[in-house]
Amino acid sequence: MNKKEKVVLAYSGGLDTSVILKWLENTYDYDVIAVCVDVGQGEDLSAVKKKALSTGAIKAYVVDVKEEFVTDYIYPTLKASAIYEDDYLLGTSFARPLIAKKLVEIAEKEGAVAISHGATGKGNDQVRFEATIKALNPLIKVIAPWRIWNLKSREDCIDYALQNNIPIPVTKKDIYSRDQNIWHLSHEGGNLEEPWNEHDQSILKMTVAPEKAPDKPAFVEIQFEKGIPVAVDGIKYNPVDMIYKLNEIGGSHGVGIIDIVENRLVGMKSRGVYETPGGTILFEAHKALEKLTLDRSTLSFKKTISEKYAQLVYDGLWFTPLKEALDGFVDSTQEYVTGVVKLKLYKGSCSAVASASPYSLYNEAFVTFGEDDVYNQKDAEGFINLFTLPLTIRAIMKLKENSEINVKKQVI
Amino acid sequence: MNKKEKVVLAYSGGLDTSVILKWLENTYDYDVIAVCVDVGQGEDLSAVKKKALSTGAIKAYVVDVKEEFVTDYIYPTLKASAIYEDDYLLGTSFARPLIAKKLVEIAEKEGAVAISHGATGKGNDQVRFEATIKALNPLIKVIAPWRIWNLKSREDCIDYALQNNIPIPVTKKDIYSRDQNIWHLSHEGGNLEEPWNEHDQSILKMTVAPEKAPDKPAFVEIQFEKGIPVAVDGIKYNPVDMIYKLNEIGGSHGVGIIDIVENRLVGMKSRGVYETPGGTILFEAHKALEKLTLDRSTLSFKKTISEKYAQLVYDGLWFTPLKEALDGFVDSTQEYVTGVVKLKLYKGSCSAVASASPYSLYNEAFVTFGEDDVYNQKDAEGFINLFTLPLTIRAIMKLKENSEINVKKQVI
Amino acid sequence: MNKKEKVVLAYSGGLDTSVILKWLENTYDYDVIAVCVDVGQGEDLSAVKKKALSTGAIKAYVVDVKEEFVTDYIYPTLKASAIYEDDYLLGTSFARPLIAKKLVEIAEKEGAVAISHGATGKGNDQVRFEATIKALNPLIKVIAPWRIWNLKSREDCIDYALQNNIPIPVTKKDIYSRDQNIWHLSHEGGNLEEPWNEHDQSILKMTVAPEKAPDKPAFVEIQFEKGIPVAVDGIKYNPVDMIYKLNEIGGSHGVGIIDIVENRLVGMKSRGVYETPGGTILFEAHKALEKLTLDRSTLSFKKTISEKYAQLVYDGLWFTPLKEALDGFVDSTQEYVTGVVKLKLYKGSCSAVASASPYSLYNEAFVTFGEDDVYNQKDAEGFINLFTLPLTIRAIMKLKENSEINVKKQVI
Amino acid sequence: MNKKEKVVLAYSGGLDTSVILKWLENTYDYDVIAVCVDVGQGEDLSAVKKKALSTGAIKAYVVDVKEEFVTDYIYPTLKASAIYEDDYLLGTSFARPLIAKKLVEIAEKEGAVAISHGATGKGNDQVRFEATIKALNPLIKVIAPWRIWNLKSREDCIDYALQNNIPIPVTKKDIYSRDQNIWHLSHEGGNLEEPWNEHDQSILKMTVAPEKAPDKPAFVEIQFEKGIPVAVDGIKYNPVDMIYKLNEIGGSHGVGIIDIVENRLVGMKSRGVYETPGGTILFEAHKALEKLTLDRSTLSFKKTISEKYAQLVYDGLWFTPLKEALDGFVDSTQEYVTGVVKLKLYKGSCSAVASASPYSLYNEAFVTFGEDDVYNQKDAEGFINLFTLPLTIRAIMKLKENSEINVKKQVI
Repeated sequence: MNKKEKVVLAYSGGLDTSVILKWLENTYDYDVIAVCVDVGQGEDLSAVKKKALSTGAIKAYVVDVKEEFVTDYIYPTLKASAIYEDDYLLGTSFARPLIAKKLVEIAEKEGAVAISHGATGKGNDQVRFEATIKALNPLIKVIAPWRIWNLKSREDCIDYALQNNIPIPVTKKDIYSRDQNIWHLSHEGGNLEEPWNEHDQSILKMTVAPEKAPDKPAFVEIQFEKGIPVAVDGIKYNPVDMIYKLNEIGGSHGVGIIDIVENRLVGMKSRGVYETPGGTILFEAHKALEKLTLDRSTLSFKKTISEKYAQLVYDGLWFTPLKEALDGFVDSTQEYVTGVVKLKLYKGSCSAVASASPYSLYNEAFVTFGEDDVYNQKDAEGFINLFTLPLTIRAIMKLKENSEINVKKQVI
Repeated sequence: MNKKEKVVLAYSGGLDTSVILKWLENTYDYDVIAVCVDVGQGEDLSAVKKKALSTGAIKAYVVDVKEEFVTDYIYPTLKASAIYEDDYLLGTSFARPLIAKKLVEIAEKEGAVAISHGATGKGNDQVRFEATIKALNPLIKVIAPWRIWNLKSREDCIDYALQNNIPIPVTKKDIYSRDQNIWHLSHEGGNLEEPWNEHDQSILKMTVAPEKAPDKPAFVEIQFEKGIPVAVDGIKYNPVDMIYKLNEIGGSHGVGIIDIVENRLVGMKSRGVYETPGGTILFEAHKALEKLTLDRSTLSFKKTISEKYAQLVYDGLWFTPLKEALDGFVDSTQEYVTGVVKLKLYKGSCSAVASASPYSLYNEAFVTFGEDDVYNQKDAEGFINLFTLPLTIRAIMKLKENSEINVKKQVI
Repeated sequence: MNKKEKVVLAYSGGLDTSVILKWLENTYDYDVIAVCVDVGQGEDLSAVKKKALSTGAIKAYVVDVKEEFVTDYIYPTLKASAIYEDDYLLGTSFARPLIAKKLVEIAEKEGAVAISHGATGKGNDQVRFEATIKALNPLIKVIAPWRIWNLKSREDCIDYALQNNIPIPVTKKDIYSRDQNIWHLSHEGGNLEEPWNEHDQSILKMTVAPEKAPDKPAFVEIQFEKGIPVAVDGIKYNPVDMIYKLNEIGGSHGVGIIDIVENRLVGMKSRGVYETPGGTILFEAHKALEKLTLDRSTLSFKKTISEKYAQLVYDGLWFTPLKEALDGFVDSTQEYVTGVVKLKLYKGSCSAVASASPYSLYNEAFVTFGEDDVYNQKDAEGFINLFTLPLTIRAIMKLKENSEINVKKQVI
Repeated sequence: MNKKEKVVLAYSGGLDTSVILKWLENTYDYDVIAVCVDVGQGEDLSAVKKKALSTGAIKAYVVDVKEEFVTDYIYPTLKASAIYEDDYLLGTSFARPLIAKKLVEIAEKEGAVAISHGATGKGNDQVRFEATIKALNPLIKVIAPWRIWNLKSREDCIDYALQNNIPIPVTKKDIYSRDQNIWHLSHEGGNLEEPWNEHDQSILKMTVAPEKAPDKPAFVEIQFEKGIPVAVDGIKYNPVDMIYKLNEIGGSHGVGIIDIVENRLVGMKSRGVYETPGGTILFEAHKALEKLTLDRSTLSFKKTISEKYAQLVYDGLWFTPLKEALDGFVDSTQEYVTGVVKLKLYKGSCSAVASASPYSLYNEAFVTFGEDDVYNQKDAEGFINLFTLPLTIRAIMKLKENSEINVKKQVI
């Protein structure tokens, strides 16, 4: 009796992964289990499932991980203030380890020997998928068709589809390469590949162009508990609905569009446009609240942590001991990051305009000009004298040197 | 004959330093030399000079250091990408060491034994002034009246002025404490002392409120050579005129307003609103150009440098060996930061929309999807295998552990 | 009836704190509660207690905190690999916050309004004591007599003692200033104040001079669980006995003597000799075990943590949010730092010569030359190609530049 | 006429590179140019040259780069205080880019199309060679036979040699894999591949075993100018002779032996024994001199630089913009690292015992106990009050919280 080995395929329903599905059967004689992980990409996933089965999958999963995505991937990164190269809110990056984790879980459950994905050989996503698979189960084989087969272009894929009776999407091929989830939408390719070209605002999907946003600013209050957002304008939301709500508000005001040249892990630069409306609001609010509740040295050192965190997330190194250790640091800092921040959204900009916390370290009594109970201005003299003592000593050393005073131990 | 000792006073012409001028004479029997350093505060400095003399100074200097300020203080900080606590462009911070340097130079030239300044005992400026004086000439005595005298408020100063025939400015006392120079304008105090209060847009002086900015975006192209801005929209400017030009453009579009809670060096938090229209344009443009011209690891490590640089500048530690060493790093990185960045200014926001450089490390040939001469997608497999090898080895270690395979050296 | 306010005094029984005890009574009319915290200084503390009472204390405590010292102060620092300025194992530094914590606890229990200590105004210890007091209970007043009174020297103290019937120790004043506890012994002052002088080996108390150590090396095996030492040569010890045991072994082989110029927090350099025999063994062993069990990126990033940790401990900032957050990082990394390290002690040197762990990430199968199942040498080509791609792209950019190939967007 | 393409081969005269020489001719029909770069490996290089020609090379170079090695590779690394993973003095690492640079220069001069080396596919050296080649001339092809051919072992090589009339060294194959140059000697393989094995002292070549070192310590004085060693015991040496001299002194006292598990760049751990007698003396001396001449914050921040520097060197990223920028930092710090350090060498240990510098920042006047002109102990109170103000404010915040005092802005 025929007992084929199984492969789990990360399946989206598009041309590429449909071709891969068939190619896996043709090339390896595998039974293919298609898995579509719902991170909020906003497609009709029951149709995707049907298409997988009709294209030849022996089984198809649709797994809704949106809440896990928000609570276990987005929130830790928000708490860590991790932003890649100062701008990118890591929307694609931290979705990949979660998707890969689900692929591994299903592969283990199904006894599959391999996992396949449709990421190309030039990008970061292949690394993120495979780093996760190796960290969670290195015994599972990885098949990355774009690094293996001879198909070199969309046209090659269409030919392969026609030859194998794979239904081809009727929609015209987008000139941009996109990735969407609940957190963000990215655009690459097309005329963006020349950094001197401005991006065309018609590409925007989650946000309106700032010029088309309302003429009156909106104000929104975000409440945090221990670094995690829990309410918007006083209303509590579950994690998924909160992101949708903030996407809606932010998107309508043109908030969260960035257009950058970034360094891929695989050694080249690329140019992308990202829309992260709700995420931008959350990062801005969280930053303002940390300014109110973290002391100077913690705030400063946390930047070193944030930078490393962002790199690890970008590079797909989510399931690593260093990432876990950074979480240990971050979680400790968030103990008192509780309070509320008011933001102003206006024509593409998003800025914190007010903040409050029961654990605020801002203490008006110390700041106010005038007489003090709590702060003795005379202390400043002693502080400055010792704080600058190294400068004084150095200056004295130089004075001695200049006046050619003999030093005890002359160097030869 | 009477030969008094001399003190050099950092003089602004305002109530405080006028009172200090007289107080120094009364208290120490010093001859006072008033020095007004022009960093672009935009006042009538010949009137200030006259007032100093009429208030009792034996001599008064007005020193225009605007160009030195831009080239030797602002540009190094721009090249270093140094921003304090993610937002503050250090406008007051790096003006202080320059002012103090001029005070020291004049004190040395005049044979003065002391320098006096009007900074209070609660702020950063006293540290910045005094750190510079100690670094450059620790033999000069520092007199900081606000830490010494019994005047505790504006009212006390007015009384002192009346008693000593010091002319009192007719302008009503601003409820805000402000500091202005060519780079920025800061606002503190008043209702800003409660972080939950939004700032009143009527306080803005260098910028229009975003809501009042033009309904059409403006585009501006900044050209850099080795990290230094040299032209705006193709027209070369000298350093001072360039800042004025960009302040004008940026200010008219509401660009560069920040409203933050910050950590002072002296251990307390304060809240301030800063206007830095031209500076914001320059930092945004410089960032975009570095993304195009610096490699990933340099860009990433430079963040550590930027953070330390910002701290040193904020803390007044400009004339220190560490600051010099950081400049050594930064200057090396700027060798190829040459090119042009186009920015869009719109209703308070400022974002880079296009960039180009003869030294761009963005290489379309490597990025484009499709067949490659230069990049072999098969390389990615080897890369990923070794890049993730530590994860694989760790996972194998855990598998062994879980399956209770004996390890060679058992721990007791 | 007379109800005096109380002060808690950190009391050692020496001349200085005996004089302070009396001076507090004379100067403030306080009731003095003497507290001697036993961190292993190795003195007769019941005699110290008696002396406190006979000198005028209304109450005297001796508190044995040696175990708390080892488990809650030494072990976290060991796990953090925190070494100040590459050499100093922080022996005095982390004892101070513990002592101060006990002072605060007793002050709160006794309802005392103030705490007094005998640290001078030039050292780090005053900061460490007072930072802890402020962090734990800022309402308690601090009295630091050396910064207040007019006694300027040992002779002044003796005079004060004679005038106040305070018994003076018969022992001749040591020319060195020393601090001892279970972890270490420090020496400062005397001829050490000239860095060109070699220290005299006769000052050593915890260790023999290397030249007098046995001619045969000793070998010792230290076993760790999650970063904490649990056994020596296979025998389990409680924390205090383990340190004593290792001090004995290390001391007899001249291990753990350092002689350094260090930077004090208060802005000056000082020179000291430290003996830390057991501590040196533990740090060396722990380092070797981390090399076996931590992956490269964790090991590397942990150095940044260690450096900050050491600074915080040295500066007395033990009870701070940043220190807690660093512990969060460190504890996570220690999860698998379990295993055994063999060290060789010989004539003053201590080096790890062998190591083993059930969680070792050293995997011989990957390292061995020859055919591989697990490692495909061909992977290296792809790895190198992508790892060095930024160099290639940069070199191509320079080639283009040199050959004056036109770039798309010419800069003016 | 036959005009073959040329390949430049890094040739050592050993079995491997002799086989490679012939294999390149056989496989690619290249003309082989053998290049032996003399970094002080201590072999008879004229014999090596002869052997290359007799084995079939059309040309053979011996290039003495010892002085360049010391001044341009060792000294910058010494000034940077760069030590890999706390122990490894980078002896092999920084030799590779220099060798590769010479290969590129000769390849360009000879018009060769490729460079070949004998590094295996599991180690760091392949990366170091190829990173340098790509950085300097990415148009040159790299041929790494160990990643290509089917020879899998020494036996395979011997067979190939016999079949191709390549003379086989009569010496018995060492069980260790070794690399030697003027700076160090490394040992890997053999029984070292089990970390629980102690290394056999008979493997040592540059040093005597500590137990066999003289019973009397030696003292040596190293003089530095701007971070570079210039004299030993008052006698000036040229760079190469200085290293030889210090190797001799250090080696005779058993100094500079380390035995570590290290993390290779290619993702695995390996175990090695390194002998670096002179280098250990220089690093120890340089560290002591920096302690005397660098201020606290420079010394501390330089550790971050050192760590990154060490990583870059270890990874072969010598010719990179980040490495150049780090040099910019380091060189600035070395301006005053001038002076002399006395070290004691004894039975394997090497420690600085005294130091002096005309630019010493150690200032006895500030340290000495007793009355001060220069340091006012009362300053310490103000310093501590402000230094610890964040702790005080935080403690007050917590007190308020605990006593449930209402805060102005209650969070929902």
